[in-house]
Amino acid sequence: MKNILLLGAGRSASSLIRYLHANAAQEQWSVTVADASLDLAQAKTQGLTGVTAVAFDINDTETSEKLIAAADLVISMLPAFIHPKAAVLCLKHQKHLITASYVSAEMKGFEAEAKAKNLVFLNECGLDPGIDHMSAMQVIDEIHAKGGKMLSFKSYCGGLVAPESDNNPWGYKFSWNPRNVILAGQGTVKYLIDNQYKYLPYHRLFAETECVEIEGFGKFDAYANRDSLSYRQVYGLDNIPTILRGTLRKAGYCEAWNIFVQLGITDDSYLIENIAEMTYADFIMSFLPKKNPQTPLTMHLASVFQCISSAEIIRKIKWTGILDETPIGLTQPATPAQVLQHLLEQKWKLEAGDKDMIVMQHQFEYEQNGQTKQIHSSLVTIGQDETYTAMADTVGLPLGIAAKLILQDKIKARGVLVPVSQEFYKPILAELASMGIVFQEKEIH
Amino acid sequence: MKNILLLGAGRSASSLIRYLHANAAQEQWSVTVADASLDLAQAKTQGLTGVTAVAFDINDTETSEKLIAAADLVISMLPAFIHPKAAVLCLKHQKHLITASYVSAEMKGFEAEAKAKNLVFLNECGLDPGIDHMSAMQVIDEIHAKGGKMLSFKSYCGGLVAPESDNNPWGYKFSWNPRNVILAGQGTVKYLIDNQYKYLPYHRLFAETECVEIEGFGKFDAYANRDSLSYRQVYGLDNIPTILRGTLRKAGYCEAWNIFVQLGITDDSYLIENIAEMTYADFIMSFLPKKNPQTPLTMHLASVFQCISSAEIIRKIKWTGILDETPIGLTQPATPAQVLQHLLEQKWKLEAGDKDMIVMQHQFEYEQNGQTKQIHSSLVTIGQDETYTAMADTVGLPLGIAAKLILQDKIKARGVLVPVSQEFYKPILAELASMGIVFQEKEIH
Repeated sequence: MKNILLLGAGRSASSLIRYLHANAAQEQWSVTVADASLDLAQAKTQGLTGVTAVAFDINDTETSEKLIAAADLVISMLPAFIHPKAAVLCLKHQKHLITASYVSAEMKGFEAEAKAKNLVFLNECGLDPGIDHMSAMQVIDEIHAKGGKMLSFKSYCGGLVAPESDNNPWGYKFSWNPRNVILAGQGTVKYLIDNQYKYLPYHRLFAETECVEIEGFGKFDAYANRDSLSYRQVYGLDNIPTILRGTLRKAGYCEAWNIFVQLGITDDSYLIENIAEMTYADFIMSFLPKKNPQTPLTMHLASVFQCISSAEIIRKIKWTGILDETPIGLTQPATPAQVLQHLLEQKWKLEAGDKDMIVMQHQFEYEQNGQTKQIHSSLVTIGQDETYTAMADTVGLPLGIAAKLILQDKIKARGVLVPVSQEFYKPILAELASMGIVFQEKEIH
Repeated sequence: MKNILLLGAGRSASSLIRYLHANAAQEQWSVTVADASLDLAQAKTQGLTGVTAVAFDINDTETSEKLIAAADLVISMLPAFIHPKAAVLCLKHQKHLITASYVSAEMKGFEAEAKAKNLVFLNECGLDPGIDHMSAMQVIDEIHAKGGKMLSFKSYCGGLVAPESDNNPWGYKFSWNPRNVILAGQGTVKYLIDNQYKYLPYHRLFAETECVEIEGFGKFDAYANRDSLSYRQVYGLDNIPTILRGTLRKAGYCEAWNIFVQLGITDDSYLIENIAEMTYADFIMSFLPKKNPQTPLTMHLASVFQCISSAEIIRKIKWTGILDETPIGLTQPATPAQVLQHLLEQKWKLEAGDKDMIVMQHQFEYEQNGQTKQIHSSLVTIGQDETYTAMADTVGLPLGIAAKLILQDKIKARGVLVPVSQEFYKPILAELASMGIVFQEKEIH
């Protein structure tokens, strides 16, 4: 019997819990799901034999240690800043650890000790980061194996709403942390095009998008991710002339979102005064020059941002209700970004039965025998409902499969790892494919 | 004999040193000028009898204590973060302290002890903050004294180049810390217009300017300062419907500077890659979409920012040399803002004989006996040369006059202070006026 301890029972844990339960008998696992909210952990594990729910607080060291000491492997889906605390206990009790988060400097610091203790500390094993690494490395390794030289790597991913549940003008609903969607892209974006470093400030990010087309699913806007440059090292592409990673939204989303950026209402750095007494229209007027009382707010906004000719932009913005004389309904001080999030959480909610959709596309360009060749590798996966989302599947299942591989002793690497090597990506991508999460590869001519 | 210790002999200290020397015999002062660079302190005090130059390092506690213990009053023109260290020694040895910097939370924390020890810790006693407080409060107190009710307070200040030395298309040269000019306005600007809070993000700051006209000196652009709201409390204007503070630049400056902001080259948060191998044109291309090799960079820039019709904007930008194929000449990693500063320090330098100019205007609107009235109070002062600048005069002389008042025991207030009360502003403004630094008041009808 092997014990798996899952820390965190939030939105993205549902598919993982189902996977762990489905494999428990065959693999002889006992599974414990621990969350700050015992109610949540119980709700997510109700009726699952062999799966136990417990209350968990990383700062309650005694209970945390007991739980970790009793496990063979720990999966953490808690917020990333908590992982180092879990890692310290995993080192102490010699347990493997898996997360879907980026390797922090602190996590990196555990490398020597984890290796010495023969442990796998696997990170970035969800969707993005996770499936992106694995599916990209599979193709890059193939290209290198046949003597190809990489010229360009562009990679795009979006967590969206499925076409059948898409009933709003943005083509978007939240399938993960709304706060991250509101703050997306803040800071400066860096990438490399034809050996020229490119820097794009936040205020131009949503205006300078690319168009990405996914067969059968139409056109998407892609805005560049914050740091594409660091992937050169991770993927062994140190001298590649072009590297860009981006986020996908349905075509038309970005030009409308850009109005929010231009207004300044995605700012999370200061509190709005007098919020309890404001309507959304008041809030928006705080970011606009004075208007003539006769001019409707819609017209005023359109004229300030010179989008008067784009009925589509205005339609999206109006639809959110942010131009309405409706009280915001927040009583506590809030940042502009928090006001926007408060509104959009009501409007962009996955309703009962709604399906989300994950779209990922890698575009590889390489030279082989003097010829330039292109491969596009694309994934589209649609969720089952608002609980077993495509997001929960693609974040959670790679973690579960990795746990299985480690407990089956099929992973030889040790230390602080990310899943860019064959021993991870081959079996994980194969099992994902068996569950319908599968990339379509296509040579482009 | 009273001993005055001046900490800092930098750019803004020249006029203050001259003032202290000029008053030393009459006031029976002995003056010590202390700087990290003994050479600089010696150069600034050369030939001035009764003025001694010493080397100074706030972290060399022994020497610092000796110097402060020997003084009756300390004036600090060091960078603001050093003031608290000086303040601790001033408290220990019971010495008065004067600075031209904003009161920090740390400085505010010395309030009780300074009061208990009967000390004056006077801050914000330079130009802006300093003369702005004093000249504004003089008029506000007059308005209140005659029963007026303040409706609006707008206040503008700029450190510029005098018309006779203005030989570049920007109408600007550096008369103080260039870094602050490059980074000016970053963060979100907050003000209040007709009881409506207004927030303006940095990327719109230089596009949404006001026009301020100063008689005899023409038109200026005014961009809003970061936080106008805090002045309500300082000036006793808690319920005023309109309050705005802004910075003045010669008309046309802001629309051209806005191109730098839109490009993203005022960003100080990350380092540019490969800087040692770049020309300015390469640098600019890092912030622009790909261009056709046949298209001149000027045209490309103009078309990206849709300023193709404004020859004037392009003329200003071209003049800086930032579109030229000239090596940047930096060998160490630098932020975009540092690259821009490196260039502009060469172009916007006050040359020998150049004169700078300080412009300040307060606009008061108030109600009295059912009538709405307006007063504009304006200051224009022109420097003597590139050493005794209007900036050095207006920052340094209020410090010197305040020192005189304190040593003459004419100041009764104690604790951590700013010069908003009559006992400060009356004599300081009067003595400044006697030196030609004088506000013109005008009722507007």
